[in-house]
Amino acid sequence: MPQKKRKFIAVIGGSQCSPEESKLAEAVGRELARRGAVLVCGGLGGVMKAACKGATSEGGLTIGVLPGDSRRQANPYVQIPIVTGLGYARNIIVVKSAQAVIAIDGSYGTLSEIGHALQDNIPVIGLGTWSLSRNGQPGDSIIPAENATEAVEKALDLATN
Amino acid sequence: MPQKKRKFIAVIGGSQCSPEESKLAEAVGRELARRGAVLVCGGLGGVMKAACKGATSEGGLTIGVLPGDSRRQANPYVQIPIVTGLGYARNIIVVKSAQAVIAIDGSYGTLSEIGHALQDNIPVIGLGTWSLSRNGQPGDSIIPAENATEAVEKALDLATN
Amino acid sequence: MPQKKRKFIAVIGGSQCSPEESKLAEAVGRELARRGAVLVCGGLGGVMKAACKGATSEGGLTIGVLPGDSRRQANPYVQIPIVTGLGYARNIIVVKSAQAVIAIDGSYGTLSEIGHALQDNIPVIGLGTWSLSRNGQPGDSIIPAENATEAVEKALDLATN
Amino acid sequence: MPQKKRKFIAVIGGSQCSPEESKLAEAVGRELARRGAVLVCGGLGGVMKAACKGATSEGGLTIGVLPGDSRRQANPYVQIPIVTGLGYARNIIVVKSAQAVIAIDGSYGTLSEIGHALQDNIPVIGLGTWSLSRNGQPGDSIIPAENATEAVEKALDLATN
Repeated sequence: MPQKKRKFIAVIGGSQCSPEESKLAEAVGRELARRGAVLVCGGLGGVMKAACKGATSEGGLTIGVLPGDSRRQANPYVQIPIVTGLGYARNIIVVKSAQAVIAIDGSYGTLSEIGHALQDNIPVIGLGTWSLSRNGQPGDSIIPAENATEAVEKALDLATN
Repeated sequence: MPQKKRKFIAVIGGSQCSPEESKLAEAVGRELARRGAVLVCGGLGGVMKAACKGATSEGGLTIGVLPGDSRRQANPYVQIPIVTGLGYARNIIVVKSAQAVIAIDGSYGTLSEIGHALQDNIPVIGLGTWSLSRNGQPGDSIIPAENATEAVEKALDLATN
Repeated sequence: MPQKKRKFIAVIGGSQCSPEESKLAEAVGRELARRGAVLVCGGLGGVMKAACKGATSEGGLTIGVLPGDSRRQANPYVQIPIVTGLGYARNIIVVKSAQAVIAIDGSYGTLSEIGHALQDNIPVIGLGTWSLSRNGQPGDSIIPAENATEAVEKALDLATN
Repeated sequence: MPQKKRKFIAVIGGSQCSPEESKLAEAVGRELARRGAVLVCGGLGGVMKAACKGATSEGGLTIGVLPGDSRRQANPYVQIPIVTGLGYARNIIVVKSAQAVIAIDGSYGTLSEIGHALQDNIPVIGLGTWSLSRNGQPGDSIIPAENATEAVEKALDLATN
């Protein structure tokens, strides 16, 4: 059962993104696949699609946890479509199914996924995403990375659960 | 059907909290009840229990959307226990069932609820809770309030959907 | 907190129904309200709407656990709209939030609710609904009732959890 | 992306089962793998474990959609653990992620899955499972099969969505 031994890493971010973010997500996907990790994401466009594209270009395995009722909703680079019908509540499944999370930019949906991940003690590595502070104290819960390779290395190092 | 005409306001925050936060939550609950709003929360302890206690002390109606499998999980001030069995995914239901959200301090679960609320365009009023910034830009998505009365007034003003 | 002391009974059935089923559901709703029970349902049309109409005509309290993202989806007789955004997964919340379930006719969605209720040891009273057998053995898990009054009496008797 | 082209078939049934049911589930898993189908299940013991064991013995791919909060809950033959934290609500994801469902015996959880599948027009093939009738009319919604090979053939034939 080699898949189970492989590390599962989630890539989260907006379903629409800039060309730069798309390039970054694709690089993260490629790097994850090269190192044998399984990519988990929300299965749609933007950051999710770019990451899946990168992963499959290197022969990686991609899981898309979809919000809607049809597997056809998945981007073309998703190999394992999981159909939830739960709407945005599927965000929780994306992070819970991963041993570490890489957040690339992203909007409020990404913020909710970061919250769910940190609540479950799943490490979150950030590439240009949200910064958090609480009651005026800076929160250092999101581990910053400068580039795709650093993000993937940190994610794999921390994916120990 | 008077209940439906009433505004539904969620109070979110930690299931454990300091005496000061508890006092604040109770004041929020009281103020909501005085103004005829229905209180929605996660139904457990801490901020949730204090808010329910405040609301019922003024004759208000309290809804607790519970994570577990039993109505007995609800704090004693919940009048309408909704039993989901969904774990923390019930956070989404708390915010979706409200027309505005008041966040009191809180940890990562509260952060995920803030994310879900903002994603759904549900206004979030903050009392000493998370601050957000994105890509180095301050995010002003959470509307600050100085005290319970101001938080409730802002929540009711913004609860228009 | 009188509401919590009241018994919570779910009425489940199709979102479209015949005039006879509608009359039956309305009678069930009326009878529940007369006996002080809180009505829980899926909040939409058909059997759900008729039951809510009956309950409110007798001053009862009605909760609608909605599949979609908006409280406006509720039928006009729902007083407490719970907005889940979970699609049909909300069926589980309808039955879990009740201490007994009355099933009126209904299609596959109702069947899934019956399965979830029986799995949780929540009694199911049937008015012209599914019959079940397993491996050729008749299953007697659904308690039959002849009319609305009998169904409500059985539901309230069995609602002990 | 060969996985996506492969058919996804769910095997549902009790988390505890008799030796005969276990043998039957293992045969179904083997047959699915031989024909290149991906096995989706609830990831736990009993029928689920036996089916995964059969599938992996033939080099098949197995997905376990878990109710709890940890990937460690999966049986040892699950290759792709999907962690939902949703409790029994995960049943819906099992059937929605499949293009056809094979039900092996099973109790009320299985019944709820059958209801969800039929509601979504996902074909259900039954091996010694529930029989349904509605309002005294036999329901023929569950397609019977005599043995594992026939069940798998019917499932693959009907898995067209």
